[in-house]
Amino acid sequence: MIEGHGDDAYRYGGDMALNFSSNVYSRITLTPLWQHLSKRMEDGLLGAYPEPEPYTLEAALARHFGMQDAQVMATSGATEAIYLIAQTFRGARNLILQPTFSEYADACLLHAHHLSMLSGLPGEADQWQLPKDTDMLWLCNPNNPTGNVVEAELLRAMFRANPRVTFVVDQSYEAFSARPLLSAAEAAHFSNVLVLHSLTKRYALPGIRLGYVTGAVPLLHRLRSHRMPWSVNALAIEAGLFLLGHPEVGQFDLAACLRDAECLRRELERTEFIEVFPTETHYMLCRLKKGTAADLKDYLARHHGILIRDASNFHGLDARYFRVASQGREQDERLVECINSWLKEQTERT
Amino acid sequence: MIEGHGDDAYRYGGDMALNFSSNVYSRITLTPLWQHLSKRMEDGLLGAYPEPEPYTLEAALARHFGMQDAQVMATSGATEAIYLIAQTFRGARNLILQPTFSEYADACLLHAHHLSMLSGLPGEADQWQLPKDTDMLWLCNPNNPTGNVVEAELLRAMFRANPRVTFVVDQSYEAFSARPLLSAAEAAHFSNVLVLHSLTKRYALPGIRLGYVTGAVPLLHRLRSHRMPWSVNALAIEAGLFLLGHPEVGQFDLAACLRDAECLRRELERTEFIEVFPTETHYMLCRLKKGTAADLKDYLARHHGILIRDASNFHGLDARYFRVASQGREQDERLVECINSWLKEQTERT
Repeated sequence: MIEGHGDDAYRYGGDMALNFSSNVYSRITLTPLWQHLSKRMEDGLLGAYPEPEPYTLEAALARHFGMQDAQVMATSGATEAIYLIAQTFRGARNLILQPTFSEYADACLLHAHHLSMLSGLPGEADQWQLPKDTDMLWLCNPNNPTGNVVEAELLRAMFRANPRVTFVVDQSYEAFSARPLLSAAEAAHFSNVLVLHSLTKRYALPGIRLGYVTGAVPLLHRLRSHRMPWSVNALAIEAGLFLLGHPEVGQFDLAACLRDAECLRRELERTEFIEVFPTETHYMLCRLKKGTAADLKDYLARHHGILIRDASNFHGLDARYFRVASQGREQDERLVECINSWLKEQTERT
Repeated sequence: MIEGHGDDAYRYGGDMALNFSSNVYSRITLTPLWQHLSKRMEDGLLGAYPEPEPYTLEAALARHFGMQDAQVMATSGATEAIYLIAQTFRGARNLILQPTFSEYADACLLHAHHLSMLSGLPGEADQWQLPKDTDMLWLCNPNNPTGNVVEAELLRAMFRANPRVTFVVDQSYEAFSARPLLSAAEAAHFSNVLVLHSLTKRYALPGIRLGYVTGAVPLLHRLRSHRMPWSVNALAIEAGLFLLGHPEVGQFDLAACLRDAECLRRELERTEFIEVFPTETHYMLCRLKKGTAADLKDYLARHHGILIRDASNFHGLDARYFRVASQGREQDERLVECINSWLKEQTERT
């Protein structure tokens, strides 16, 4: 694993006033969930082993999406799914679209994959020239850190045109884009597709570790044969069951969220020292025209208790890149204000 | 992973009145922990990522044991440690003392180890003839399912006599034996020893998934380079920190626990249809002189809401074996009473 993921407030001794550094959208209310989990803990939830594989939660997810139980696999965050897929397909010849979440490459390297990096995100299917010996392609959609989306129709054409390639599509951010994406259920209609989903992201619950994979039974069966027991903790299972059973909890207004993000994007561009890449979701990749993301991050953390993501360690990016996720109009305005102070200091210093 | 670990109440539709099936000793009180975790959840604990590696908890454990931070690695239960060790030492020639916890062999097989099984637990170091090409030896101490203990002095001699062999000693049940075992800290004094510990077992918290490994820095460094980020969830980290900071919480009387176990052992033997193997801890391996463990388990679950562990799927055991963990005098008496009803039915039927 790389050093320097987002959400690293612990490097600055703990609490931050504002956190734009992970792609978690935190403006949702989960009070009924906390109450439920507290009660279940007092009832002894943690005093028994979780199911060795989270059968009950998998069945509930399957029912929710109109799928068969065996077409859904719950995991300890999408991260467990990533490492498990890399392990299961040990030694595969892999193509990873870059820049993207670094864990795909890290997991694949741990399990002796042969990696090729494909830069940029072409808009046309026929521009995706997959080398003939490709076994596997990894794609984050919407992508992290760019917020780009590859259209579902384009992906379906890719899946059909390359039946021997296994496609891993990480849709961890699916709840935060209005663009057409693959449905959880349709992954199972292809023999060569695994779609990753994250309850962590959808419900701003990264501390609990909960995600799931959907796909065809034979593919998921291979994954299951490689997993360790009890990987999904009892509280995560309980939270998943509760949220499925209480669709009114944790709702948010996607349109408002995207409007806020667009507003943040414009404000950042107005500083004139930051280039912001187009995004289809609530987070965005930015490039400083002067100074480094590391300096900006350090300044914001130390002087304003604000955390951003230094994106310099993404493959293909450099010291100028950072990433922020919109956290609502007022919070975003505060971010821009503090970035402007830093830019002013930079300009005065030179 | 095998089908049929303990604590499988979910097979019978959920709650059991009494659970003797896992080796968790549940007669401890954790009310202050539940209160603390509930409060931290409401304060937003789960809304942020846990540390990608649980540095803070590892440092706290290290301080507690008088070790260096890098000599302690916290894991998502001892199970993560088992699979991570198997992965890190991929392809090793392995000796596993049997019968024992099946996950060692399962994890090693997933990662292309060459396995040899050594049956029984000899009492003398010079009887342990390790084949010359052995890279690694796995040992559960106290052992599961037998409750046997290999003396620490004997183990130290083994470590010194076989410097090229990596020893994995799973001390998940260390809190439940009065016999001398390896200390957490001394693992780091050997270059070839990894000791596994389980907070899950010590504090009856299997739902939360928390364990740790102690060993020399170079060995732990190898493990760390193979682990995925965020494997230990935020609640587990918080629970670990709380329990280290509140040594008064979750105490139990080991002497009383072992007295109860000895009493249960005698009562089971008095039935005359059950052979109970000597144990050095609170759980014990039993062999039915007639009938099968599967039938007994089914009878107890369906008629009395009591769960035991069918031990027939341990390597080298057969359909007659089961395992129970003492849960206190009154509960144990109820177990024996219900087993007696079944034995009576069996005898009348034949």
